[in-house]
Amino acid sequence: MKSDARRLIARNVRALRVAKGMTQEDLAGAAEIDRSYVSLIENAHFSISVDQVEKLATVFGVAIFEMFHPDTAAKLEQ
Amino acid sequence: MKSDARRLIARNVRALRVAKGMTQEDLAGAAEIDRSYVSLIENAHFSISVDQVEKLATVFGVAIFEMFHPDTAAKLEQ
Repeated sequence: MKSDARRLIARNVRALRVAKGMTQEDLAGAAEIDRSYVSLIENAHFSISVDQVEKLATVFGVAIFEMFHPDTAAKLEQ
Repeated sequence: MKSDARRLIARNVRALRVAKGMTQEDLAGAAEIDRSYVSLIENAHFSISVDQVEKLATVFGVAIFEMFHPDTAAKLEQ
């Protein structure tokens, strides 16, 4: 069973990336992580560390807690 | 330089644990993690995973994003 935290992060990373018009490749480059890693994160297959969450939050220009907020993706998808 | 995410989690875990009247030993037992691990987390020496953050949030009965919210500790310390 995929944890809620992984599903929240997966949905928010994808929504934030798309809202920024970034490909997975773009995000991987900007956050200095491997592209396959972005795909694993966006499919809730990986329990990333808080340091990595911070890197992604910095790229997206959002506060760290927004990466876990249930409303983050919904606000972007309107 | 310790990341903001680590310092946020450190401060919030300590504040939530104290507010619940739990020792590090109590929290380690409830979250099924090693006591030395709790100390590492509370001193921002460790970049824990989102699965582990979720375990702690469940023990504290708070939403995952509150573990990273800058106001969580301040509200408890009033």
